[in-house]
Amino acid sequence: MNNIPYKIYLEESEMPKQWYNVRAKMKNKPAPLLNPATHKPMTPEELSPIFCDELIAQELDNDNLYIDIPEEILKFYKMYRPAPLVRAYCLEEKLQTPAKIYYKFEGNNTSGSHKLNSAIAQAYYAKNQGLKGVTTETGAGQWGTALSMACAYLGIDCRVFMVKVSYEQKPFRREVMRTYGASVTPSPSETTEIGRKILAAHPGTGGSLGCAISEAVETALGMDGYRYVLGSVLNQVMLHQSVIGLEAKIAMDKYNIQPDVIIGCAGGGSNLGGLIAPFMGEKLDGTADYRFIAVEPASCPSLTRGKFAYDFCDTGMVTPLAKMYTLGSNFIPAPNHAGGLRYHGMSPTLSQLYADGYMDAISVPQTEVFKAAEEFARVEGILPAPESSHAIKAAIDEALRCKETGEEETILFGLTGTGYFDMVAYEKFHDGKMEDYIPTDEELAASFATLPKTE
Amino acid sequence: MNNIPYKIYLEESEMPKQWYNVRAKMKNKPAPLLNPATHKPMTPEELSPIFCDELIAQELDNDNLYIDIPEEILKFYKMYRPAPLVRAYCLEEKLQTPAKIYYKFEGNNTSGSHKLNSAIAQAYYAKNQGLKGVTTETGAGQWGTALSMACAYLGIDCRVFMVKVSYEQKPFRREVMRTYGASVTPSPSETTEIGRKILAAHPGTGGSLGCAISEAVETALGMDGYRYVLGSVLNQVMLHQSVIGLEAKIAMDKYNIQPDVIIGCAGGGSNLGGLIAPFMGEKLDGTADYRFIAVEPASCPSLTRGKFAYDFCDTGMVTPLAKMYTLGSNFIPAPNHAGGLRYHGMSPTLSQLYADGYMDAISVPQTEVFKAAEEFARVEGILPAPESSHAIKAAIDEALRCKETGEEETILFGLTGTGYFDMVAYEKFHDGKMEDYIPTDEELAASFATLPKTE
Repeated sequence: MNNIPYKIYLEESEMPKQWYNVRAKMKNKPAPLLNPATHKPMTPEELSPIFCDELIAQELDNDNLYIDIPEEILKFYKMYRPAPLVRAYCLEEKLQTPAKIYYKFEGNNTSGSHKLNSAIAQAYYAKNQGLKGVTTETGAGQWGTALSMACAYLGIDCRVFMVKVSYEQKPFRREVMRTYGASVTPSPSETTEIGRKILAAHPGTGGSLGCAISEAVETALGMDGYRYVLGSVLNQVMLHQSVIGLEAKIAMDKYNIQPDVIIGCAGGGSNLGGLIAPFMGEKLDGTADYRFIAVEPASCPSLTRGKFAYDFCDTGMVTPLAKMYTLGSNFIPAPNHAGGLRYHGMSPTLSQLYADGYMDAISVPQTEVFKAAEEFARVEGILPAPESSHAIKAAIDEALRCKETGEEETILFGLTGTGYFDMVAYEKFHDGKMEDYIPTDEELAASFATLPKTE
Repeated sequence: MNNIPYKIYLEESEMPKQWYNVRAKMKNKPAPLLNPATHKPMTPEELSPIFCDELIAQELDNDNLYIDIPEEILKFYKMYRPAPLVRAYCLEEKLQTPAKIYYKFEGNNTSGSHKLNSAIAQAYYAKNQGLKGVTTETGAGQWGTALSMACAYLGIDCRVFMVKVSYEQKPFRREVMRTYGASVTPSPSETTEIGRKILAAHPGTGGSLGCAISEAVETALGMDGYRYVLGSVLNQVMLHQSVIGLEAKIAMDKYNIQPDVIIGCAGGGSNLGGLIAPFMGEKLDGTADYRFIAVEPASCPSLTRGKFAYDFCDTGMVTPLAKMYTLGSNFIPAPNHAGGLRYHGMSPTLSQLYADGYMDAISVPQTEVFKAAEEFARVEGILPAPESSHAIKAAIDEALRCKETGEEETILFGLTGTGYFDMVAYEKFHDGKMEDYIPTDEELAASFATLPKTE
């Protein structure tokens, strides 16, 4: 019998006190954000109407490896962290695999996901700068919920633009945000110029994440004492989310566990970037080797089928340009795709690491993802979010490969959250009504045609 | 600054390996279950068509203080336990109270509540006896979900009768149970004689817990290799739930924390009975003193306004008689009452302790409960279940009393679960559409008139 416990919780004193900035270790830094008008790198001054000052500093900091976590954020982290590192003994037994499977479970907080790690940081810096509030967008609703919680805790205003189709399909998510005092507006809305324009052009539209971003940015720009915050993609978000990887690494080091392969689902990249950060640092250093796998939905395959190019972060084309793997800013995944991971682009940091060959990527169809989710739920007792289940699917496949070869590899994956608000998708799956959708090459070509020319 | 961490997680090696049977310490034992026909105590033989043999032994065991937890159950407990003992620093700060507030949080598992502690035990003994499956009822859905999870893990069949009004209002709960492979039937149903009878008499009825129990019992009796299991009220359930109190006590002892007052919400009594068990043992011994407070909804006030008498456990009057505080087995709380705690009776063990003066009880109206829930959610980051929020309300009131008097009391309460599936109730509350309902004396008198005469 192994002496690794089912769950490893760090002591409060062992919890990380600094975030880990993997960019400091990268030889090829992520490309800078560009001003869409001039195609010159955005200066802090140009960014300051949109983002908080301290967050801009973090966004642009490619040099400092460690960045102190402010005391107030540490306090908040203690409220819902440490997140457990779980040894999936039951799943291993079910699969009859010689592999050792671990997952870092980030779902034990009311936002239901890892998003809270960055939400509290962004809300804190906004408050610290004397701002009144923040605006943001949310799709599946996890980020919006997390930000509402953080803002309620700190006592600042929170305005969420929620993709209309989610707003209507997920009234409970909306209600959780209201419990935390946030205002939630279905997007596209009549409250912004961009919203009105989109509504005029597409009267019955269910909206998209890119469109909600445009509305949130416009709203922040138009109001005194407000800034826009984003739950993924940006360098600053990867930085805050490094707390996931740091905790995982401290827990593994404590028990002398060395992962061979590290797996995360990838939409904008916040979870994956955070989970792998300190491990990637070692790989970049050459002091250790790991295999990293980004798992994305086949219906929104930015790494596996996208172009590495400068693109807008939103549909309305009001944001700076980011160099990333992208499907084109007007790409919208099929409406039958469940859950998050619907974003057209990928974190510039992760994109660069992928381009440089430090990371693998695969895409998986959603019916297989839900099959893996259900298998996992039945033996591990956690009902996973559809997003997280992409990582589960890949981890199970890796464990089955080990079973074939007899290798006793150690697998670590990120279980980003719980699926309590995704039962409509589970129901479709149970009833055999869930379909897979994979964009055709023609569809992608049409979408790539809208990429801005920056050279 | 205090050196008590925000959350105390026991090490795996510190987790309890035996349940605590408080009945062994009671001078006045809970009254035995009676055969409704003969009014004689039920023998194990009479109980065996309904319950598993080992559970009958536990039900009748008033002598053994400690009962070993089987290895397989310990393994399952390790999957989702230990549950954290949380110091509510943020709530204390918000309330500006000198009181120290702790809560034992049982919501970090997919069933969303403490119910899993007994579900796995009951499913295990059923499997161990070679049975094919179990039947049960569920109201709000937490117990049904917990039992589905336990049965999926052990590979036995699970048939849940879900109160029809909940089945319709909570399709997501139903879907979680399906994810775990359970069959879920809205009650009353056409599948049982009792269900057909009730449907004939009350065609549009939304059902009740008492009625669902009758259907589940009838189904178990009519099928080979099935037994009925119950999520609360019974002595065996209090026994399994003692794991809550044991873990809490070990964690508190480790940090030299001595609670003054211990608070739990009370429907059938499973959480409260489990939480207080080892503390009550000390009080019965005279080795320590604690104040225990049972908190029940004003709309279903069995301890505070019920009669201590023998009564049926179900509406259909097919179960044995239990001596308990009861509102009458045909009492149904107003449909506008949110969440669980809708049962007409109270655990015979807790009833006896209350009758003997070892425990206090209060009742609270639901709008105040939701107000407390929202206040708690905003500072502690957990969205509580409506049931659990009854305890929160009482804990806040105690903390405010300490603020008035300046007493530095230590308060421990049970946070039994999360409210993710209760957003319809939260929405009503936010929209000002939630009403309080308190049964009149006349209504209760009419209900008491149906109590069986046993003397």
